[in-house]
Amino acid sequence: MSDKQQTAVTPRRDEDFPEWYQQVIKASDLAENSEVRGCMVIKPWGYALWERMQRVLDGMFKATGHRNAYFPLFIPLSYLEKEAAHVEGFAKECAVVTHHRLEAKDGKLVPAGQLSEPLVVRPTSETIIGAAYARWVKSWRDLPILLNQWANVVRWEMRPRLFLRTAEFLWQEGHTAHETREEAEVETMKMLRVYETFARDFLALPVLCGEKSESERFPGAVQTYCIEAMVQDRKAIQAGTSHFLGQNFSKASGIQFQSRAGQLEHAWTTSWGVSTRLIGTLIMMHSDDDGLVVPPRIADTHVVIVPITPKEDGKAAIIEAAESLAASLRAISYHGAPLGVEVDNRDLGGGVKNWEWIKKGVPIRIEIGPRDLAQGTAAVARRDRGPKEKAFLPLAEIPATAPQILDEIQSALLERATTFRDANTRQIDTKEEFYQFFTPSNAAKPEIHGGFALTHWNGSATVEEQIKTDLKVTIRCIPFVDAPEAGTCPFTGEPSRQRVIWAKSY
Amino acid sequence: MSDKQQTAVTPRRDEDFPEWYQQVIKASDLAENSEVRGCMVIKPWGYALWERMQRVLDGMFKATGHRNAYFPLFIPLSYLEKEAAHVEGFAKECAVVTHHRLEAKDGKLVPAGQLSEPLVVRPTSETIIGAAYARWVKSWRDLPILLNQWANVVRWEMRPRLFLRTAEFLWQEGHTAHETREEAEVETMKMLRVYETFARDFLALPVLCGEKSESERFPGAVQTYCIEAMVQDRKAIQAGTSHFLGQNFSKASGIQFQSRAGQLEHAWTTSWGVSTRLIGTLIMMHSDDDGLVVPPRIADTHVVIVPITPKEDGKAAIIEAAESLAASLRAISYHGAPLGVEVDNRDLGGGVKNWEWIKKGVPIRIEIGPRDLAQGTAAVARRDRGPKEKAFLPLAEIPATAPQILDEIQSALLERATTFRDANTRQIDTKEEFYQFFTPSNAAKPEIHGGFALTHWNGSATVEEQIKTDLKVTIRCIPFVDAPEAGTCPFTGEPSRQRVIWAKSY
Repeated sequence: MSDKQQTAVTPRRDEDFPEWYQQVIKASDLAENSEVRGCMVIKPWGYALWERMQRVLDGMFKATGHRNAYFPLFIPLSYLEKEAAHVEGFAKECAVVTHHRLEAKDGKLVPAGQLSEPLVVRPTSETIIGAAYARWVKSWRDLPILLNQWANVVRWEMRPRLFLRTAEFLWQEGHTAHETREEAEVETMKMLRVYETFARDFLALPVLCGEKSESERFPGAVQTYCIEAMVQDRKAIQAGTSHFLGQNFSKASGIQFQSRAGQLEHAWTTSWGVSTRLIGTLIMMHSDDDGLVVPPRIADTHVVIVPITPKEDGKAAIIEAAESLAASLRAISYHGAPLGVEVDNRDLGGGVKNWEWIKKGVPIRIEIGPRDLAQGTAAVARRDRGPKEKAFLPLAEIPATAPQILDEIQSALLERATTFRDANTRQIDTKEEFYQFFTPSNAAKPEIHGGFALTHWNGSATVEEQIKTDLKVTIRCIPFVDAPEAGTCPFTGEPSRQRVIWAKSY
Repeated sequence: MSDKQQTAVTPRRDEDFPEWYQQVIKASDLAENSEVRGCMVIKPWGYALWERMQRVLDGMFKATGHRNAYFPLFIPLSYLEKEAAHVEGFAKECAVVTHHRLEAKDGKLVPAGQLSEPLVVRPTSETIIGAAYARWVKSWRDLPILLNQWANVVRWEMRPRLFLRTAEFLWQEGHTAHETREEAEVETMKMLRVYETFARDFLALPVLCGEKSESERFPGAVQTYCIEAMVQDRKAIQAGTSHFLGQNFSKASGIQFQSRAGQLEHAWTTSWGVSTRLIGTLIMMHSDDDGLVVPPRIADTHVVIVPITPKEDGKAAIIEAAESLAASLRAISYHGAPLGVEVDNRDLGGGVKNWEWIKKGVPIRIEIGPRDLAQGTAAVARRDRGPKEKAFLPLAEIPATAPQILDEIQSALLERATTFRDANTRQIDTKEEFYQFFTPSNAAKPEIHGGFALTHWNGSATVEEQIKTDLKVTIRCIPFVDAPEAGTCPFTGEPSRQRVIWAKSY
């Protein structure tokens, strides 16, 4: 790309990736920071993405036997303390409610009605849900419990970043309790695969599945599994996690049941979640220097029709043709739901309108002007191609063709992301090459460096710690591989059971 | 009803209505109290009702031009203070966050990291949303803003009651900003009518629409409109509200715009909401001494099929017939969505299973036993009729008949509720009769008394206050009537513009 090419978003990705990210969010009107430190306002265009994600995931959860429920926002401090590793992991980022009313004092409102026990605004709900399960479970007949909750959670963030790291975020958290270890393990893996499928088939994110090393585990979990995406600055984003909690939380909460053999046993539990962070991942993966790019299968608006009406004369006919095309398109079912279609009838120039929809990432843009109408055609542009690239298609053919174009865009985005990830994944076998891979040679204009390093590791947390300190690089996951290839850890010379994935991350 | 008749819920409604309400919730497994005072756990059967309500209302909001967004959970104390009446109204019930982490001190975790400004957990979002609108609105071209938010809110409750009055509850809050007073007024009324339609057509609640008197107005509103239902103990429940906020909040938040005439003007705003309180209203309106009754159009599960398998021999054939019937029913579209069908294959007696579904309020129960199967019929029971009443219908006819039966149940529930309300609404013209109407003659076994009194009122808040003190009766609304009939206020002898609705309420 020439440095002089005009782009809709400034700076470009290759100039300043973090700032580009903020500007894409602004240009596409997805969200903004609020006055409350770390809390964001999710604007309609951003929330529509979340609604689509919710609807699809909710369907997948229900298809795998889960139901939704809702548990309290507030967790008594004593509950959080029941699981030692858990409270240790969250203590530093808890919003704490200490009072239940406001009172005028010296002409100023101050907190009053101090609570006898402080309440923590849920950072996650294992402990409060565990308390409910302890009430509900008496016998093996009461198991499994397979519930999910759509909710907001709060983790106080010192360095917030829209969607990726905010003090309050929206998520779903699945919480299940089982009779046996095996059942809970199967559940943990099943939900990880649901996330993988959702990420690939809807978000066009080719994620890697694997297990977290102990240092990156969810506080209180026995095992944490994750899906990891590589975004365009070659950093990793953990896009979803599924935890096998063993009996840790059931012991902490007292989830006990009479087993088939008549013994009193602790249940085996899991939890799994994805959040509005998926929106941040989506942006960093697919968007370009012209703004947001939304994969069609997660888009709320699939097609925008832009009537071009340079003169009053003939304007009505063009708008009528646009509305008629919109009606035909809305009658089309795309993967089980009607196509989302907007007609942009605003009294603005075609170029202005067109660029707005480019920035907002709508998959297909259709322009209809006087000449098009005369010829019975329209100019069809795809968001995954250059902003000027158009195909002139007969108006009558567009409804039937649209789903096919959308599927092509969806596939193209997934393919591009996969190619990018593979091109930036390297097997590295020496410490020197590893350090080089993660060190920009020239900070002002860094050459391509970094990505996923597939490198052996002896399993030592000390090695992880050293590399994190030196390079800000961590193990993103120990990937699932059919036949793990043993080798030598380049950092210690000790034996390694398999290569693991190292990367910088968000 | 004979006192000796066995009912599934104890006590009966006529014995102890408040306790009956709690027991219906327990028997139908809708929700329960949590350990966090005033916060409830909404269990799957209860949450499924909320999900249906959400889906229908969300569609109605979108059809009237609204989009969803999401705003922060936390409101800086200084924001709340901007509107004097508003903060006055909510100060006594605010959960206040004062710290952002936990720290070990003398071996105990205590709140640490005190915030420079306390944050209030939103009791409602006019002020935090107003701050965003103030950023977004510059010109009349930026108006109207028509947004809705699905969220949790917190209002500290000293006397919580499941669904009706809980410290945390789920709701939607619409917030709109307009160029003119008229537009905002039209919006306020439009959304009130959306609520009325939803309540009537989906919840089978014949609500009355009207305006609140000043003393019952939303803190900060110019006018508050409401839908009011009468439930089976003849008390009123405010089931939804729509507020015309005038310029009060736009002045407090600084929502200003350049008008068409080039002047700087304050926007006109509205807000409107319904909450999980609708579930409580539904229970109190339709349920009976056998448990919950769910109106079909809001049911998640419309039909339950209970195979009766007294012997192992022939069991497989019966279950096969049940599953086959379920498949046919699931293929039926009921008001735009597939019928929700459960097959209860558990190894329990038919009576036990049947009673469970009665208590859970499923509209249609279908029993298939060996004799039915031999005759190609099934026993179909409706939840709005007695628990023993069954119709034997040919299996093949059931799928086509089910939607019709469901519509009949829906109409019957609405009709029953309307008849009940009308029978317990009285025009009262003297103070003596008014006081008698609201006073039980015998507390141990109260005769029928109370309900809605349509009584003139001179508009005085002092009168309202006195009646509230004497009888715990308030003006539920000043109803919309085409031709208000003027009269005399029986409490003061002063002139009255129209009759208003008085009742005890939740």
